[in-house]
Amino acid sequence: MNQPTYVLLIDCPDRTGLVHNITGVIYRQGLNITANQEFVEHEQERFFMRTTFSGAVDETLMLKKIRKVLPPGAWVRLTPKRRKKIVLLVTKEQHCLGDLLVRHQFDELNADIAAVIGNHDTLEKFTHQFGVNFHLVSHEGLSREQHEAALQEVIRRYHPEYLVLAKYMRILSPEFVAQHPNRIVNIHHSFLPAFVGASPYRQAYERGVKIIGATAHFVNNDLDEGPIIVQNVIPVDHTYSVRDMIQTGKDVEKISLARALKMVFEDKVLVHGNKTIIFD
Amino acid sequence: MNQPTYVLLIDCPDRTGLVHNITGVIYRQGLNITANQEFVEHEQERFFMRTTFSGAVDETLMLKKIRKVLPPGAWVRLTPKRRKKIVLLVTKEQHCLGDLLVRHQFDELNADIAAVIGNHDTLEKFTHQFGVNFHLVSHEGLSREQHEAALQEVIRRYHPEYLVLAKYMRILSPEFVAQHPNRIVNIHHSFLPAFVGASPYRQAYERGVKIIGATAHFVNNDLDEGPIIVQNVIPVDHTYSVRDMIQTGKDVEKISLARALKMVFEDKVLVHGNKTIIFD
Amino acid sequence: MNQPTYVLLIDCPDRTGLVHNITGVIYRQGLNITANQEFVEHEQERFFMRTTFSGAVDETLMLKKIRKVLPPGAWVRLTPKRRKKIVLLVTKEQHCLGDLLVRHQFDELNADIAAVIGNHDTLEKFTHQFGVNFHLVSHEGLSREQHEAALQEVIRRYHPEYLVLAKYMRILSPEFVAQHPNRIVNIHHSFLPAFVGASPYRQAYERGVKIIGATAHFVNNDLDEGPIIVQNVIPVDHTYSVRDMIQTGKDVEKISLARALKMVFEDKVLVHGNKTIIFD
Amino acid sequence: MNQPTYVLLIDCPDRTGLVHNITGVIYRQGLNITANQEFVEHEQERFFMRTTFSGAVDETLMLKKIRKVLPPGAWVRLTPKRRKKIVLLVTKEQHCLGDLLVRHQFDELNADIAAVIGNHDTLEKFTHQFGVNFHLVSHEGLSREQHEAALQEVIRRYHPEYLVLAKYMRILSPEFVAQHPNRIVNIHHSFLPAFVGASPYRQAYERGVKIIGATAHFVNNDLDEGPIIVQNVIPVDHTYSVRDMIQTGKDVEKISLARALKMVFEDKVLVHGNKTIIFD
Repeated sequence: MNQPTYVLLIDCPDRTGLVHNITGVIYRQGLNITANQEFVEHEQERFFMRTTFSGAVDETLMLKKIRKVLPPGAWVRLTPKRRKKIVLLVTKEQHCLGDLLVRHQFDELNADIAAVIGNHDTLEKFTHQFGVNFHLVSHEGLSREQHEAALQEVIRRYHPEYLVLAKYMRILSPEFVAQHPNRIVNIHHSFLPAFVGASPYRQAYERGVKIIGATAHFVNNDLDEGPIIVQNVIPVDHTYSVRDMIQTGKDVEKISLARALKMVFEDKVLVHGNKTIIFD
Repeated sequence: MNQPTYVLLIDCPDRTGLVHNITGVIYRQGLNITANQEFVEHEQERFFMRTTFSGAVDETLMLKKIRKVLPPGAWVRLTPKRRKKIVLLVTKEQHCLGDLLVRHQFDELNADIAAVIGNHDTLEKFTHQFGVNFHLVSHEGLSREQHEAALQEVIRRYHPEYLVLAKYMRILSPEFVAQHPNRIVNIHHSFLPAFVGASPYRQAYERGVKIIGATAHFVNNDLDEGPIIVQNVIPVDHTYSVRDMIQTGKDVEKISLARALKMVFEDKVLVHGNKTIIFD
Repeated sequence: MNQPTYVLLIDCPDRTGLVHNITGVIYRQGLNITANQEFVEHEQERFFMRTTFSGAVDETLMLKKIRKVLPPGAWVRLTPKRRKKIVLLVTKEQHCLGDLLVRHQFDELNADIAAVIGNHDTLEKFTHQFGVNFHLVSHEGLSREQHEAALQEVIRRYHPEYLVLAKYMRILSPEFVAQHPNRIVNIHHSFLPAFVGASPYRQAYERGVKIIGATAHFVNNDLDEGPIIVQNVIPVDHTYSVRDMIQTGKDVEKISLARALKMVFEDKVLVHGNKTIIFD
Repeated sequence: MNQPTYVLLIDCPDRTGLVHNITGVIYRQGLNITANQEFVEHEQERFFMRTTFSGAVDETLMLKKIRKVLPPGAWVRLTPKRRKKIVLLVTKEQHCLGDLLVRHQFDELNADIAAVIGNHDTLEKFTHQFGVNFHLVSHEGLSREQHEAALQEVIRRYHPEYLVLAKYMRILSPEFVAQHPNRIVNIHHSFLPAFVGASPYRQAYERGVKIIGATAHFVNNDLDEGPIIVQNVIPVDHTYSVRDMIQTGKDVEKISLARALKMVFEDKVLVHGNKTIIFD
């Protein structure tokens, strides 16, 4: 019989014997650890751990036993290793959506795209080509509060574990974000820090930058802030027009988002404060 | 007999027939064009050209003939292809200086380092190991005006074609910079735009960036602004301490500065406004 | 009225006055040069040039005039700047095909995909999702000669300017290739030179490589040889399984192929012997 | 009082409870684990671990206790965290040597360069500039056996922990290599696999490659084989002459060697068969 596999994530203050004691709990349950990574952040003496193990487990009991060997205030997550259920939010640009739909169709995403929600209908037909649900939730004539309530109403039907902003161009309110803590992944059109304000590629062009980048990150309060998961770059030069820079930006965006999601969906990314710890 | 080689650089408004007319001037002098690159910037309809040719030339006459076929307001530079004479300014960090001194000693820099000027004596002995002049021009007890006057006094003795700020950590005044237009190359500890203010690597660490970069650029008014010549990056992750990030930053700084200088000293870099056109 | 734009490509022995004479021909026709790049390869004293100009042109006359100012044995191509018509060949893997179909649907490819031909039907439904023709040309029970004759029969219906091997896993005969000189672009699963023989990723894994790459190139005689257009890499490490390496390889393959095609379809790639000259 | 820090490296067949049992040994000695990384290679079910801890330790006793909880045939190394003592071997090229000597002088190498040995005297004066011993051990008129005996005689005086081949251009015999198992680091002028035989850059140029790389690796039997530690690349294009490619190759060589040495000298690199496991 194929045993289920679990991923255990821990974030707590460091203290002596943590690894020994945690692995002891797993070991005494007769479970088999298949991977184990820890990291101690020495500025704040913080301990991070990712462990995968296989075997039959009473999850509640297991969590209780693990918490017993951890310091107070520890954050723990125990999840069976399985495909995530996700919902994508989009506006008009297709490059990230297209990349994710193709990966999804050929089962390379480690996730099920339950639905795509757009605030425009531009990508409806395209999404349907892949046999995926599309919901138009227009913001026209709605307050931000009303629009987000409408979004939440659709999202709730699917119970997604993650929301992916695949070039969703509306700011989300702190209230909305707070309902999905460390569960929203965004792709940002540049490095962070970066050119702020409108037309970032126009600004990059004017400044004569030699590199175009993208940043995939969790969304906390601010759309363009939050813990960074992946940053990538592609070199450009003076022969690139603003349009060429935009196209290059799209390529690096879609690759960066896909790489970030792969790691997030495999439970390899821990968030602490405004940083990520990635056990890749 | 080995013929001298010349580099001709042109920056002017675009108009029909420019390439034909310019190459015609060279052609009719019986000179042999060995490389030729042009670029038209279509937003401002600006024409840029770099041509190398070999043969005996009356430089003044040649320039006069070329100007005749160019629109008014054209910028032209005609220089024999030869090693540049340069002066380095440093403070206390050795990584860029060391890299340049080693390249210089083995004749890989296409330039002669006439002298190194430091506002501290930290690198004096190190510079002397390479048989290169070192001048201490301390800023202690001097106004910025007085310090820069002292710098200029030393610089003037060497008639350098370029000043290289190899981790020179003092701000230069607009007056100083104006005396060396597009002749000062600086290496900046990050991308531009970037974390501003003190301790940029501390800020980068706090923000959890996944990439460390460096920017080599000409200095115009502001120390950390000016036309970008080279930008490079090296990936980092959560296991990097602030110290590791600083070390990584040094590696990417020295490589970026050396690449930028190579192109500048081969007259491959044109400056227009706040951008560079690089004919590499 | 919007004037047509032309791309002129030249490859010939170098000699004095070429740029002047060629641009003179264009200039005297009252045409406006919008971009111009030359490159002289000094080992063989070979001259390469790419010029774009706009205006109404008698193509045959123009070519005749240009040939007059070139040395004997010159290769010249004059083409209106327009979207290319292409046919893709595939087998079972979808990552490159998917990337190209998405770009095509949103008009980012500078080409029309007239049809996709597969030697398996695996990707038929997927191709149809994008409204693109799919032809199954199975090799089952056919000699290579017969199979290629069947392919040619389908290809000929579309008069494509380029064939793109988007993970087409059959060797093409020299006879087939010779009918499309410098008109077939392939994506290779590694650098060249590289691990040869079966299971290259298995070999790369065994060898513990730290970088995975891909090469987009023209096909001449041999499937995995021919002038290189683009090479890209993504770093890997010891935590990558063979499967992870394969996935990484797919990502770098699709990006590399798309970048190569963009440059080829904009007539920016010249082939000389076994090398490319790229005027990007 | 500042406690000493130790690095424990383990390579053994995987089995249940290893992490728990190993950390238990450390924990019961009252030692403080400051970092811990494990990796299980699933093809061969092999377990790798790197643990750093601080505290006063009886090394022999500690090793004995650890071996008790490991399967038979385990490889274990326990070393105090300290600067390594190294000897460099060079021939005529200075770029790697120069980079290492500058880092050494400013204490960035985590190692002491006890001596440099050259089979030519080209770099003697340069080495002396940095106050480092240089030994000329010419191979002229000697058999390989005699030359290596002479090398060993000089090396033995210094008791180095690592030999670094900083562009040492002679093949070492299997007998020589066997005396320094996994203790010789070499920098190779290309990827592996790569162009073999003489003039690799000439071959790369003829082939029109778009990327130049370098590989830092341990030397086992064959000079250009052995477990890969670091591979890096820098893009090139058709404008690069053979000479430009050589210069680019040097830059990527020196950076790659320095990065590899940093990880090796911090005991972050485990060797298993022909692969490395890097706990970075």
